[in-house]
Amino acid sequence: MHVFVVGANGQIGRYLVKLLIDSNDHSVKAMVRKEEQASEFKEMGADTAVVDLEGDAGEIAESAKGCDAIVFTAGSGGKTGYDKTLLIDLDGAVKTMEAAEKAGVKRFVMVSALQANNRKNWNEAIKPYYVAKHYADIFLESTDLNYTIVRPGGLLNETGTGKVSVGDKLGRGSVPREDVAKVVVASLDEENTYKRAFDLVSGETPINKALKNI
Amino acid sequence: MHVFVVGANGQIGRYLVKLLIDSNDHSVKAMVRKEEQASEFKEMGADTAVVDLEGDAGEIAESAKGCDAIVFTAGSGGKTGYDKTLLIDLDGAVKTMEAAEKAGVKRFVMVSALQANNRKNWNEAIKPYYVAKHYADIFLESTDLNYTIVRPGGLLNETGTGKVSVGDKLGRGSVPREDVAKVVVASLDEENTYKRAFDLVSGETPINKALKNI
Repeated sequence: MHVFVVGANGQIGRYLVKLLIDSNDHSVKAMVRKEEQASEFKEMGADTAVVDLEGDAGEIAESAKGCDAIVFTAGSGGKTGYDKTLLIDLDGAVKTMEAAEKAGVKRFVMVSALQANNRKNWNEAIKPYYVAKHYADIFLESTDLNYTIVRPGGLLNETGTGKVSVGDKLGRGSVPREDVAKVVVASLDEENTYKRAFDLVSGETPINKALKNI
Repeated sequence: MHVFVVGANGQIGRYLVKLLIDSNDHSVKAMVRKEEQASEFKEMGADTAVVDLEGDAGEIAESAKGCDAIVFTAGSGGKTGYDKTLLIDLDGAVKTMEAAEKAGVKRFVMVSALQANNRKNWNEAIKPYYVAKHYADIFLESTDLNYTIVRPGGLLNETGTGKVSVGDKLGRGSVPREDVAKVVVASLDEENTYKRAFDLVSGETPINKALKNI
């Protein structure tokens, strides 16, 4: 698959781009905001697109045309205000879905957050963030896209183990960003993850096996 | 109709409560956050409920039980941050919809904002606010509730004229808050507004006539 990555310059996005470049089955088109980011990804061997996620859905669609899948792993992050949470994590995500539909890219993988689907478990300190993720996920489920929603627990920077636990109600937990990226890549053509959402934390099961047994 | 007003203490909400108290056809239950607000509304002759919109949807449902309609006119306002926009204007609105469904209250009137349905026309200065209103409206349209979405233009504090213009693509315009409240009340049992969204600005047509000819 030729995979369009929205949020390629993010922490999970960077792992994802590397994995896709190194993959025998896939290739990558990295969507980034700035030319200098694009140069860096080009040097790594990625196809790139310079598009502002706060801009028009039509531009995203134009760039994604011809790709086989879109991964949304953009996030406004903890350093900006909740204005950006609304504009990026919610509206940016939905614009990407609209772009996928417009460009005829059916496969869509969303990097969400553990508990985004359970309002009563939202962490009080970052509750507005969960609101944005929650409604982006709900919108995705209402589309005709062939989606997968991955809900990772607390994100760690340590090296991935390649072993995870996936399921419906995993409660709390954490997982290295590298393993999140690996799960996204493994999900791309794993039919068992189509039209499905699942929790993801570190565990004992190799990723491919875990996805076959969700 | 016995009308449950969420956001009764807001600027439109206060007009709405007064109109419903004075009405021959309707009565009101004002949902407010604080006991002292409830006392004030009680003195005016309203039934009241003290419920936090940031709390549980179950509590809202419990308070709305037995009412015939719910009006959502709560808004976090310009003085708080976009965290509250996410928690009140979006998640608070959707929790109220969930509460309506839970309480079996089928009729639901949403006070939205002009252009909330047109991303390309969102005012750059308060774009994140439109994101929240947009997705709350979309969610409402996806429910089985008998909804009306009123999208007023710029809100004015001057006295209402009772004359408006309603329609699908009114562009820019403004309207006194008092007239917005009057349109909401007139919509309650006007079948022409059921399962429908419309723009509202000041105009030349008496409200009841305008609603019959949307």
